[in-house]
Amino acid sequence: MASEFELIARYFSHAYEGVWPTQGPGDDCAWIDPLGERLAVTTDMMALGTHFLPDADPVNVGHKALAVNLSDLAAAGAEPRAFLLALGLPEANTEWLSGFSRGLLDEATTYGCALIGGDTTRTPQVNGIHAPVTISITAMGAVPPNGALTRSGASPGDDIWVSGTLGDAFVALGIRQGKIVPVAGTEGALFSRMDRPTPRVRLGLALRGVASACADISDGLAADLGHILERSHVGAVIKETRLPVSVALSHYPRSLVRQAQLTGGDDYELVFTASPSARPTIEALSAQLALPLSRIGCVEPLTLGHNLSVETEAGERKPLSGGFDHFGD
Amino acid sequence: MASEFELIARYFSHAYEGVWPTQGPGDDCAWIDPLGERLAVTTDMMALGTHFLPDADPVNVGHKALAVNLSDLAAAGAEPRAFLLALGLPEANTEWLSGFSRGLLDEATTYGCALIGGDTTRTPQVNGIHAPVTISITAMGAVPPNGALTRSGASPGDDIWVSGTLGDAFVALGIRQGKIVPVAGTEGALFSRMDRPTPRVRLGLALRGVASACADISDGLAADLGHILERSHVGAVIKETRLPVSVALSHYPRSLVRQAQLTGGDDYELVFTASPSARPTIEALSAQLALPLSRIGCVEPLTLGHNLSVETEAGERKPLSGGFDHFGD
Repeated sequence: MASEFELIARYFSHAYEGVWPTQGPGDDCAWIDPLGERLAVTTDMMALGTHFLPDADPVNVGHKALAVNLSDLAAAGAEPRAFLLALGLPEANTEWLSGFSRGLLDEATTYGCALIGGDTTRTPQVNGIHAPVTISITAMGAVPPNGALTRSGASPGDDIWVSGTLGDAFVALGIRQGKIVPVAGTEGALFSRMDRPTPRVRLGLALRGVASACADISDGLAADLGHILERSHVGAVIKETRLPVSVALSHYPRSLVRQAQLTGGDDYELVFTASPSARPTIEALSAQLALPLSRIGCVEPLTLGHNLSVETEAGERKPLSGGFDHFGD
Repeated sequence: MASEFELIARYFSHAYEGVWPTQGPGDDCAWIDPLGERLAVTTDMMALGTHFLPDADPVNVGHKALAVNLSDLAAAGAEPRAFLLALGLPEANTEWLSGFSRGLLDEATTYGCALIGGDTTRTPQVNGIHAPVTISITAMGAVPPNGALTRSGASPGDDIWVSGTLGDAFVALGIRQGKIVPVAGTEGALFSRMDRPTPRVRLGLALRGVASACADISDGLAADLGHILERSHVGAVIKETRLPVSVALSHYPRSLVRQAQLTGGDDYELVFTASPSARPTIEALSAQLALPLSRIGCVEPLTLGHNLSVETEAGERKPLSGGFDHFGD
């Protein structure tokens, strides 16, 4: 079996060195010289069987493992610079590693994010069987001082916007799990959204100085917009009819679509707030990035009770909560 | 069951904010403003049952999980500043989390290393049973430009030094696993070295500008010194009789002691090289830190064949290799 160092040399040595000067692999620490920039840092842990289906294509796993971290950087308005990879493996499966590293490093190169360090180890056993692949990535990005986006700056009167379309990944997962019957011709588009999400890095960069608050939608719109409201001490109302839907998802029953848009996770779009005076800027940005940006609601003062409501097609207001929680009931 | 956010608030909110300005928890990314410093970054993944015994005291697990990362920073001559924690849990066991977070955050405060971000998730299942606790820590430290230590600067003629004593953790593990019969009265000292290793942070800082190369001993002296030799393109000879031994370990058979000192991992001492002209400085440092620093050998030009030899008590030279590899045979 290949040694730890052979695994690193074979699958994770990477010609792309990135923008931050660093000393390359092989030492106890990686160095970075950030040259007076502010750093945004994020970490995520993922496992096959929890965050990925057990038999997921390793190329997609590598792609998505980095993409979800890049999405956190995008939500902070940060420019991806470097990442570290901690990888737990049940065995040194060369076919799996080959696909995983290809997906990972392709994505790294696309977004200018260099692999500067890491750790490989064996997963722990349960009754003599090693646990599935576990991936932990820490990604770092650069932000100019005072240029970053946070969840805490939304004010009453701000518009609420989302990028792209919502709910595709939720329905794709339901189809894969056999819980939702697919509509013919829609699976390809939906699966691609779930398996190879696009981190909205360029949008995040363009929203510096424009958005008052921003988050990525990993746990569902209700949950992630909820974090913005909580951190900003405000409430909000969103209009059901304004929620963007993909062509593929539009073929499904309306109640399922609404559920997917409001509470389905894994889309990795951005939800952000901005003053109404920024509408022309945001609309121009949408055209420039060729990315739909939909104005879905409005920030309100915080009132007692539910802080997030949805206005239905019939004009009724209903309280909303929900989203994905790893340890929730 | 507690939600992910409740777990974070209850166990991992931490009054200690560290030296780098940051915006606190609750956002997609943490920010750090390194103020013109060079950053050293390291990541490690550990699991109960692989890196810790399945029933290890959670306070010790928390302590050691951070300590092994601080040890990597020490080997780079970096001053600990901040870390991110990705934590995979089979369940939200409040007793375990309470002990783990106490051990972790006590160690963080001792070394000035602030917890600035993280991720909690559920471990994947094997036949319906969640895998044991998996911990991934990314730690960051500050180094002045050009002030860091690496593995690559050793030159022929340099002395080779190690801190503290070697082999204790190896024998402690053997005792816990029932493979080594303990000598009465020695277990406490040996177990403490294995369970609560001391990262040599102050030594690492003091070795800036003094050591020509440095590594921490996580995989065993032969393996970690071997990394220095490989990266520096040199060979070395170490004298068996110069290897430091603790009082507790000195009660064990000599052949076991030698094996533990040369190939046993998990001691988290530093091995470093320095010019003979630095001997008075290093001896003064040893007194100042109240930490034994032993001159165990000499760097040589690289020759064909084995690059690391050991000189036995009888004056014989023997080639040496070995150490711990997670995927090795």
